[in-house]
Amino acid sequence: MSRRAVRVALIGTRFMGKAHSNAWSQAAHFFPGRPRPVLHVLCGRDRAHAEILAARWGWRHVETDWRRAVARDDVDLVDICTPNNLHAEPAAAALNAGKHVICEKPLARNAAECRAMLDAARRAKGRLNFVCFNYRRVPALALARRIVAEGRVGRVFHVRCVYLNSGSMNPNAPMRWRMQADIAGSGPNGDLNAHLVDAARFVAGLEISEVAAAAETFIKQRPVAGQPGKFGTVTVEDAVIMLARFHGGALGTFEASRFGRGRRNFHGLEINGEKGALRFEFEDMNRLKFFDATLPQRLQGWTDILVTEPGHPYAGAFWPPGHILGYEHTFINICADVLEAIGKGPRACARLQPDFADAFKVQRVLDAALKAARSRKWEKTGC
Amino acid sequence: MSRRAVRVALIGTRFMGKAHSNAWSQAAHFFPGRPRPVLHVLCGRDRAHAEILAARWGWRHVETDWRRAVARDDVDLVDICTPNNLHAEPAAAALNAGKHVICEKPLARNAAECRAMLDAARRAKGRLNFVCFNYRRVPALALARRIVAEGRVGRVFHVRCVYLNSGSMNPNAPMRWRMQADIAGSGPNGDLNAHLVDAARFVAGLEISEVAAAAETFIKQRPVAGQPGKFGTVTVEDAVIMLARFHGGALGTFEASRFGRGRRNFHGLEINGEKGALRFEFEDMNRLKFFDATLPQRLQGWTDILVTEPGHPYAGAFWPPGHILGYEHTFINICADVLEAIGKGPRACARLQPDFADAFKVQRVLDAALKAARSRKWEKTGC
Amino acid sequence: MSRRAVRVALIGTRFMGKAHSNAWSQAAHFFPGRPRPVLHVLCGRDRAHAEILAARWGWRHVETDWRRAVARDDVDLVDICTPNNLHAEPAAAALNAGKHVICEKPLARNAAECRAMLDAARRAKGRLNFVCFNYRRVPALALARRIVAEGRVGRVFHVRCVYLNSGSMNPNAPMRWRMQADIAGSGPNGDLNAHLVDAARFVAGLEISEVAAAAETFIKQRPVAGQPGKFGTVTVEDAVIMLARFHGGALGTFEASRFGRGRRNFHGLEINGEKGALRFEFEDMNRLKFFDATLPQRLQGWTDILVTEPGHPYAGAFWPPGHILGYEHTFINICADVLEAIGKGPRACARLQPDFADAFKVQRVLDAALKAARSRKWEKTGC
Amino acid sequence: MSRRAVRVALIGTRFMGKAHSNAWSQAAHFFPGRPRPVLHVLCGRDRAHAEILAARWGWRHVETDWRRAVARDDVDLVDICTPNNLHAEPAAAALNAGKHVICEKPLARNAAECRAMLDAARRAKGRLNFVCFNYRRVPALALARRIVAEGRVGRVFHVRCVYLNSGSMNPNAPMRWRMQADIAGSGPNGDLNAHLVDAARFVAGLEISEVAAAAETFIKQRPVAGQPGKFGTVTVEDAVIMLARFHGGALGTFEASRFGRGRRNFHGLEINGEKGALRFEFEDMNRLKFFDATLPQRLQGWTDILVTEPGHPYAGAFWPPGHILGYEHTFINICADVLEAIGKGPRACARLQPDFADAFKVQRVLDAALKAARSRKWEKTGC
Repeated sequence: MSRRAVRVALIGTRFMGKAHSNAWSQAAHFFPGRPRPVLHVLCGRDRAHAEILAARWGWRHVETDWRRAVARDDVDLVDICTPNNLHAEPAAAALNAGKHVICEKPLARNAAECRAMLDAARRAKGRLNFVCFNYRRVPALALARRIVAEGRVGRVFHVRCVYLNSGSMNPNAPMRWRMQADIAGSGPNGDLNAHLVDAARFVAGLEISEVAAAAETFIKQRPVAGQPGKFGTVTVEDAVIMLARFHGGALGTFEASRFGRGRRNFHGLEINGEKGALRFEFEDMNRLKFFDATLPQRLQGWTDILVTEPGHPYAGAFWPPGHILGYEHTFINICADVLEAIGKGPRACARLQPDFADAFKVQRVLDAALKAARSRKWEKTGC
Repeated sequence: MSRRAVRVALIGTRFMGKAHSNAWSQAAHFFPGRPRPVLHVLCGRDRAHAEILAARWGWRHVETDWRRAVARDDVDLVDICTPNNLHAEPAAAALNAGKHVICEKPLARNAAECRAMLDAARRAKGRLNFVCFNYRRVPALALARRIVAEGRVGRVFHVRCVYLNSGSMNPNAPMRWRMQADIAGSGPNGDLNAHLVDAARFVAGLEISEVAAAAETFIKQRPVAGQPGKFGTVTVEDAVIMLARFHGGALGTFEASRFGRGRRNFHGLEINGEKGALRFEFEDMNRLKFFDATLPQRLQGWTDILVTEPGHPYAGAFWPPGHILGYEHTFINICADVLEAIGKGPRACARLQPDFADAFKVQRVLDAALKAARSRKWEKTGC
Repeated sequence: MSRRAVRVALIGTRFMGKAHSNAWSQAAHFFPGRPRPVLHVLCGRDRAHAEILAARWGWRHVETDWRRAVARDDVDLVDICTPNNLHAEPAAAALNAGKHVICEKPLARNAAECRAMLDAARRAKGRLNFVCFNYRRVPALALARRIVAEGRVGRVFHVRCVYLNSGSMNPNAPMRWRMQADIAGSGPNGDLNAHLVDAARFVAGLEISEVAAAAETFIKQRPVAGQPGKFGTVTVEDAVIMLARFHGGALGTFEASRFGRGRRNFHGLEINGEKGALRFEFEDMNRLKFFDATLPQRLQGWTDILVTEPGHPYAGAFWPPGHILGYEHTFINICADVLEAIGKGPRACARLQPDFADAFKVQRVLDAALKAARSRKWEKTGC
Repeated sequence: MSRRAVRVALIGTRFMGKAHSNAWSQAAHFFPGRPRPVLHVLCGRDRAHAEILAARWGWRHVETDWRRAVARDDVDLVDICTPNNLHAEPAAAALNAGKHVICEKPLARNAAECRAMLDAARRAKGRLNFVCFNYRRVPALALARRIVAEGRVGRVFHVRCVYLNSGSMNPNAPMRWRMQADIAGSGPNGDLNAHLVDAARFVAGLEISEVAAAAETFIKQRPVAGQPGKFGTVTVEDAVIMLARFHGGALGTFEASRFGRGRRNFHGLEINGEKGALRFEFEDMNRLKFFDATLPQRLQGWTDILVTEPGHPYAGAFWPPGHILGYEHTFINICADVLEAIGKGPRACARLQPDFADAFKVQRVLDAALKAARSRKWEKTGC
């Protein structure tokens, strides 16, 4: 595998900008023998802020206009961590410019935007079009996928997914871009339900054919930051609940909310199948629960697998068994796989998942959910 | 309080017949000072079987025709544990005959049947019309209700209820009456979802206004017991999933299935509110998890309350703190409350909950669920 | 098996008197086909109290002198639930009178008393000499024993046992007999550590050869009930901690305390062996955790077995899978096994465990613990 | 605070070398505004291996002789990650050379070595003498300490500590330096029990006055790596169990083993006090369980605090609430505190804990444990 450098331009300097800066910093420490990532360009609209971050994480250059970042000849890969309304254009531009692209989720504000991005990706043959559904690279969920793929779960009857935080429960907290439909596209539907839908697809290996849903905005007016006395209107939902039917007959329930008192970043998933069942909770992300119904009945139960063994996905790159990993490692694992694919060449890049085609399918489900919430009936996803 | 006897006629000799026989046997052991229950008449269609049970549990008389049991002058209370199609008639007859009535859930096969039973109950003033939603008398759920009533949860945003067993997963297991719509009315909708809907109403103190749903029968043909080679058609669902809107704006998700691999009798409930949250799982029924968002943030978390203290509902009647109770105690608690109400007189009997009016509301939700599953749109419950 | 009656005389009317009354009441309900227990004589020094209890539980006769109870011709089995200083005499008298004897734990105040009881038992051939280490009949611990016996744990390296309650933490709570050495023999050593030592022996199938220990009385003076202003001296320990070596080389740690803040009746046991490991906590007594190190490493973990299946010990007698049992069922299971042994005859009675020989071994360990606490060095148990 | 650089020389290139390389790399990313660490010199006896690691982590220079590393003028801080027999000399040399020193635990092979190092530290005024008991900087344990310091636990009655892995259970695994007394000093006593003793001291704020113990070597001969057919003798224990008395009267139990089947890196601690109790398990290191006995009794229970809030120790530097941290973050937190102390100056350096004086106390307890295991009686620690 080539040891050539991959010069990264990261667009975005907030939460995801930090998570990705860390991941690019760390990938070569734990996953040697792949192309070497270079923290080359950090792009943020607020130059002063971007320069602080660049200095802290070692980004060599700062840009304030994503167009300039994307256009640079000395950039190999563009990593998009901007708000959702600023995914489609930079991604297409970068792909058209021959760059590899990785983009935060949700890929865009709606399926139409995703579709355009997918088209651009298909034109840019041999370039990565990767979407950061980072939960796929939680070792425990990667193991869950492997257990399903080995046939240990059998026919799936139920998928149950809940993503709760309590991030919007304080009525005095100011308006954020995540509460504005023109920027975010949607609220927890795109922010949280997107993770659930992708995780369900990934682990179960099934697509959702139709959905019913409800969405609710519990607090409709929010103070505007820096403008005392001024309130703005929340134009996204605070919570979305969804029923789903999968191709093949499984039933699914999905719930995503920013009003989940008691939950800070709870992503729970359970799959009940003919031969086995799986459970996962992100706040205990180093653990996977597996129920093997093929064992003698008196020994059956939920096995709590601490996913830190050398034979577990990704775990061997870090620490000895029993030394747990955290949230940030999901991004390091992404960068490791991205670098490996680039090292292996265009065919590996084309195969790396989740890609824009995955995100498009996810987005069709999400769009169908909001449509169903409005129409008050079941809607097909088109997947 | 009077120490007079309450002569019970129990109709039904299977699972619930055993659970209620036990409860009537035990009530006076742990809850003295109330009218004394007399295990007077056991009624079952199979006389030989009924006589064995009667001898085992101490029932004084055996009847094989519920009409005779209900008509007996020496019976004060009729306890109905028959299949669902045999609730309405005996209940109405017993009420008309001036007996107290307690009836297993679901109260009937559908809301129309419930309505007729409720009408009979309203005519029978001063008589108990009690429905055995036994989860209300799990000490932990009674405590949950109390915590909500004390205002410790505040405005409710989310209710999440899941009831899973794996009771129908074996395709070779023969047809049971619970799989036949003419007898059972429905499958897990009436069997399991009924528990969830009542528990949600009870703990949250809120009614469901509308629902969307899906229902599925995963295995449509079953062997007929005792008739080798013969198969019958399952006419109820194996699973039902449901979205709900509550009056007041809370969102709910409900799931009930007999295909919940890994779960044997899992009844999970979570409520997320403004000031607090509650969680409960029936397989760990002695525990209630409470999240108090009014504590200092650094000390907030889910408090795992072992509900066995003298100050906890029902617990003081049994054993010292830390000595847990089981499934059967929910029925003992029911009998204790029933006997207390009878001892206190007609007004207490009229107030004892859950009553037929509760069950009617539950059934309207359940009926709306199956209607919504067919119509593929949201349906009002009428509650 | 004979269906003849077994007429029981129960001596003791407090906590254990209630638990045993319940067990004798319930045994025939759940375990038919064995000799029928008759609640024949209840013996308590306070006649008024005893008569109330007798009426509540259906004891036919009341005695106030254990000698009279034991001497009655119409008694087949004497069940001893008195304070520890009143075990030896009644047990020997009953055995000498040809009765079956079952006795609460600890069997006596010290090994010398146990030895005398054991001698009496050996003289009384064909009669039961059973000790109510009730944890052996928790279905989960019976399953644990079975798993060890099947060789699934292999050579045992570690045994870890903790029994904590917080029963003596209130300094204002009055003196009880359990705090007085002349009556109780010891404090949590006999009360709690006895359970641990027996459970360890039972599950691991190993005897303890030597111990080191410390004992402490945290609150040395207690108010005397009913005598305001008067204080008595606590003459037993509040806590005992113990190291152990087992024959065969395993190491053990034991801890028993009435000052275990946060724990109400916590009996935890863990065994780590070559091929597997087991964990149990009594407050979740329907669950056993089993780690099977012979599974593929990526699937290894602690399997949480809900011990309510028909194939699990005792569970099938009660309710369907997933419907949990409570503390009291351990005593029902004892009565069921006792009745079965009596029905089968003298050889079965001689084999039923735990017997006085077991209790003698346990007591030798407990005595060695207190001796070691005083001598400040390791002491042999003689086992 | 100064932004001057701190040039680090790291001695050791194995597990701890990697963990510390990572921590020095990451500290400035998450804890800006402190002196900037420079990964200046990596020292390892195997030059080729050291150069690979240096290239991977960005160490500027490689040395193969610790004397040269310590003597360099361009080094400000020496970080000692060598086997235990190579702590004392480099530490003393570095302190004598005016460097700050941080050293892995156990500080040395025995208390005498620690004593000499402590003397060197006391002579080197104003220089750090820090010991990497990294568990103190698990956010949850730092919170535990704070809860105790706030008086929320009150008088401590019990401390219970267990550290289990299964690292030596494979009899075919070759001899390691950790199994050789001349290099390691002891086995899990120094490796694991050291962590427990320090954590107990830290959280409870109490010193251990005397101990009893047992130690055992379960597998006494091991294959020698690279020499087929040759076996060496294990000269340390595989497991040590210990009873402790604390000043103030609390009782403690400690257990450390490499034969803890089912446990991979289990560090459990529980403290039971008058007013509250605390529990922690390292494999779930983002959680602290706190039992507050001052709450109304019906609401008491173990509160499961997810220690990821901005107000929790260290957590705010990383990710939003609910995004968990891993093992490696404990070392990052150490580096952050070390850099802060250096930035603040000599008095802050002198106060930073745990220091050599802490390690000396820990080692006196560990030495007393092995002495007690040999003498078979209680031994004073001298603390």
